[in-house]
Amino acid sequence: MRMVDIIEKKRDGQILTKQEIEYFINEYTNDNIPDYQASSLAMAIYFQDMNDDERAALTMAMVNSGDVIDLSDIEGIKVDKHSTGGVGDTTTLVLAPLVASVGVPVAKMSGRGLGHTGGTIDKLESVEGFHVEISEDKFVKLVNEAKVAVIGQSGNLTPADKKLYGLRDVTGTVNSIPLIASSIMSKKIAAGADAIVLDVKTGNGAFMKTIEEAEALAHAMVRIGNNVGRNTMAIISDMGQPLGNAIGNALEVKEAIETLQGKGPKDLTELVMTLGSQMIVVGGKAKDLGEARQLLENAIQNGSALETFRTFLENQDGDGSVVDDVEKLPQAKYQIELLAPKSGIVTEIVANEIGVASMMLGAGRQTKEDDIDLSVGLILHKKVGDKVNEGEALLTIHSNKEQIDDVKDKLNQNITISQTGTEPTLIHKIITE
Amino acid sequence: MRMVDIIEKKRDGQILTKQEIEYFINEYTNDNIPDYQASSLAMAIYFQDMNDDERAALTMAMVNSGDVIDLSDIEGIKVDKHSTGGVGDTTTLVLAPLVASVGVPVAKMSGRGLGHTGGTIDKLESVEGFHVEISEDKFVKLVNEAKVAVIGQSGNLTPADKKLYGLRDVTGTVNSIPLIASSIMSKKIAAGADAIVLDVKTGNGAFMKTIEEAEALAHAMVRIGNNVGRNTMAIISDMGQPLGNAIGNALEVKEAIETLQGKGPKDLTELVMTLGSQMIVVGGKAKDLGEARQLLENAIQNGSALETFRTFLENQDGDGSVVDDVEKLPQAKYQIELLAPKSGIVTEIVANEIGVASMMLGAGRQTKEDDIDLSVGLILHKKVGDKVNEGEALLTIHSNKEQIDDVKDKLNQNITISQTGTEPTLIHKIITE
Repeated sequence: MRMVDIIEKKRDGQILTKQEIEYFINEYTNDNIPDYQASSLAMAIYFQDMNDDERAALTMAMVNSGDVIDLSDIEGIKVDKHSTGGVGDTTTLVLAPLVASVGVPVAKMSGRGLGHTGGTIDKLESVEGFHVEISEDKFVKLVNEAKVAVIGQSGNLTPADKKLYGLRDVTGTVNSIPLIASSIMSKKIAAGADAIVLDVKTGNGAFMKTIEEAEALAHAMVRIGNNVGRNTMAIISDMGQPLGNAIGNALEVKEAIETLQGKGPKDLTELVMTLGSQMIVVGGKAKDLGEARQLLENAIQNGSALETFRTFLENQDGDGSVVDDVEKLPQAKYQIELLAPKSGIVTEIVANEIGVASMMLGAGRQTKEDDIDLSVGLILHKKVGDKVNEGEALLTIHSNKEQIDDVKDKLNQNITISQTGTEPTLIHKIITE
Repeated sequence: MRMVDIIEKKRDGQILTKQEIEYFINEYTNDNIPDYQASSLAMAIYFQDMNDDERAALTMAMVNSGDVIDLSDIEGIKVDKHSTGGVGDTTTLVLAPLVASVGVPVAKMSGRGLGHTGGTIDKLESVEGFHVEISEDKFVKLVNEAKVAVIGQSGNLTPADKKLYGLRDVTGTVNSIPLIASSIMSKKIAAGADAIVLDVKTGNGAFMKTIEEAEALAHAMVRIGNNVGRNTMAIISDMGQPLGNAIGNALEVKEAIETLQGKGPKDLTELVMTLGSQMIVVGGKAKDLGEARQLLENAIQNGSALETFRTFLENQDGDGSVVDDVEKLPQAKYQIELLAPKSGIVTEIVANEIGVASMMLGAGRQTKEDDIDLSVGLILHKKVGDKVNEGEALLTIHSNKEQIDDVKDKLNQNITISQTGTEPTLIHKIITE
C-alpha cells in the first residue's frame, strides 16, 4: 500500500477502505508516513468528505492507535458526555451526581486543560480535601458503589488524534466534519465510554457558527457512535452567552450545588435536564426522554441528587458539608459590582470575551504552568433578554486584586444594552440519529 | 503573514495576492515553511485553481527563487521550445538549426536527463568531437555569429520548483493545471527565454490524456507567458505513437539530417514546420504563421538549414561532414528486422512501451549513473494507418546484443495490426492566446 495512492483516491472522490484508513493511521502514528502526506490527505478529505463507513473506520483506527481504558469491571452502561466547548459550562459538575443518582454509572476521566476557567478537576478541588489521585481499583470500586467517581487522565490515549490534530491546526484542515467528528468520538471511546451524549455548541463564539453546521457535526458524531456500537445522542445548544450565571471554579461548584437543589439558573437547569435525559436513555435506565426527565426531576426534588454529590465528594476525601454550606468554598477578597451604564434590555454578552475577563482575574490557565485562583470569577445578574436599569448591577466581579480596570473595560466592551431584544433560544435541536 | 492563513484563503476559494504567493515561494525555498503546509496549499490549489494573475505571480516567484540566465548579450528575441514529453522526439535537433537559419537565435541550455533515449546533448554527442563544455562567453559569441549553440545546464535554476515538484510527486498534487503550467513556464523563463513555443502532447501515453486537458494546459501556459511579457504560442499534438521513425540517439541525429534535407518522415516534418512557424513568429521574423512556414520551407529547399546544422556542429568541435555522410555516425553491430505476424493495418504503436524497448537496448538511462549506447535503437518502417503484409518488416532493431528476445516480445506486445484503421491526426490544435 502506498500513501500517495490513498491521497489520490480520496482526492478523486473515491471511498477509502477500512484497510487503507488503518494503514494511514497506524503508519502515521509510527512516523512512517510524513506530515506532508498526512496534511495533503486531510485537505483532500476537507474537499471530498468521508462516508459513514470511512468515518467509523477512521474513529476506530485512532482509538486503537494508543491505550484504550477498560471499564468492564464497572457494572452497567458507562455513559460519557462531551461538550464542544463553552464558557461557564457547569454542566459536568451537575450531571455527574445527577445521573449517578438515577443509577447510570459515571466513571469520569478528566484533565486540567487550558481555558477561561480550570477543568472539571480544578473546579472540584475548590472543595477542601478533594483529590483525584486514586488508584484504578479504588476508582472502579467507588463507581460500583456510589455510581460516580473522577480520576485524573492517564495512559497514552489516541496518539494518532493528537498528532493529526496538531497538524490540522497549522494546515487549514481543522474545519472538516469527518475529521472533527472522528477526533472527538475517538477520544470518548478510548476513555472507555459505552454510550455518549454530545452537546454541540453553536453561535458567535462557538466553533460551529451556524445551526446547520452544528447539526451536521452532531449527526456525524451520532452516526459514528451508533455505527461502532456506542449508543449516542446529541443536542445543539446556543453559546451566544455564557451558560448559567457563574464563571470561575469555586463559583461554579456553588452554582452546581444550587442547581442540584433545584435552585439553579434557568438555562443551566434546562441544559442539564436535556443532556441528563439523553444520558439516562443511552444508559438504559429509561425507555424515552420523557420518562428520563421525570426520573431526574424526582432525584432533584427528593434530594438524592444532592446526596449523591455529597457522597461523591467524601469518597474522594472532600468536605461533603459544602453542599449544606457553600460559604465553605474559597471566597475572593473583593466583590465588585459592574453597573449598567444605561437602561434597556441586555442583547449581547460575548461568551468568549467574558471568559477572557475571567482568565484575567486568574480563574483560568493560558499555559500549563499557570496557577489557578479557585476563588475568583464572575456572577452574572443579567442575561440576554433581561431588562436592566441604569446603575443596576449587571454582574459581580469576584477578585483578589482591587485594581481591575482592565477587567471592567473588557466586560463593558462585551455586554450590549439596547432598547429592544428578546430572550435567546438555548436548545436548538435534539439529535437522536 | 502566516502560511496557515494563506492555505485557508485558497481553501475557501479566494484569490491570493502577489505578496502572499511570493511569501510562500520565498519562505518555502528557504526552508522556513514546512513541507506539510506546502502540500496542504498544493491540494487546496488542486481543488480551487488559480486565476491568471495568481498563475503569473507563482511562475515569476519560482523564476526569482534561484538564478536567472542573462542572455541579453545575444541579439534578437531568444525563443525556446518545450515539449511536455514524447518518445522518439527529434524535433529539437531539427528545429534548432532550422529556425536559426531564418535568423531566430537559438541559445539552448540542455541536460542529459533520464528517459527512453538520451537528452539532446547525448544525441548530439553521437557526432564525433561535439561537446557542450564551452564557456558562457563563447556560447554568446557562437549564438550571435551562427544563431545557434547548445550549452550544458548550469546554475541553480528554479529551486522552488524543484522542491515543490518533488513534494507534489508524493502528495497527489501533480495533476493540477496551475501548478504544471507555472512549473514548466518558470523553468523556461529562468533559462533566459524571451519567447516560448510549447508542444503539449496528448493521448494514451501522454500526461494529458484528453485533448480538452491538453488544451487547458496549453492555454494556461500561453496566458502565463503573455502575462509576464514572454510572447508564447502552443500546439496540441498527438503522442499515440512515437514521432518520426527513429528512436535512439545516433538514429535520431540521422533522421534530423534527413529532415533538414527535406527527406524526413511526414509526421516529424509536419510537427517541425508547425512548431518552427510559431518560433519564427514569436521570434519576430515573420508577421504570421503562413509567412513563417514559407521561410522555413525555403531554408530547407535552398540548403541553408542543413548548412546551419553543419556550422553549429563544427562550432562546437563536431565533425560537420556527418551532414553529407550519415554513415559516419555510430552504428550498432546488429540490424534485426521485426516482421509482421499477419497482414492488415497498423492500428496501435504504444509510444511509451516502444520507448521502454529502446531503453532495454541501451539507448536511454534509468538512473543518472547509467551509460548510454549511442548507436542502438529502433527504426519504424510502418506507422499507425499503414498497410502491412504478413512477413514484411514492421521495424528494424539496431542492437549491439544478438540475443534480444525480450525486446522483440515487448515490441510485439505493443504493436497492433487490425483489419480496419485510419491514419491518426498529428496536430490537434494551434493555441495562440
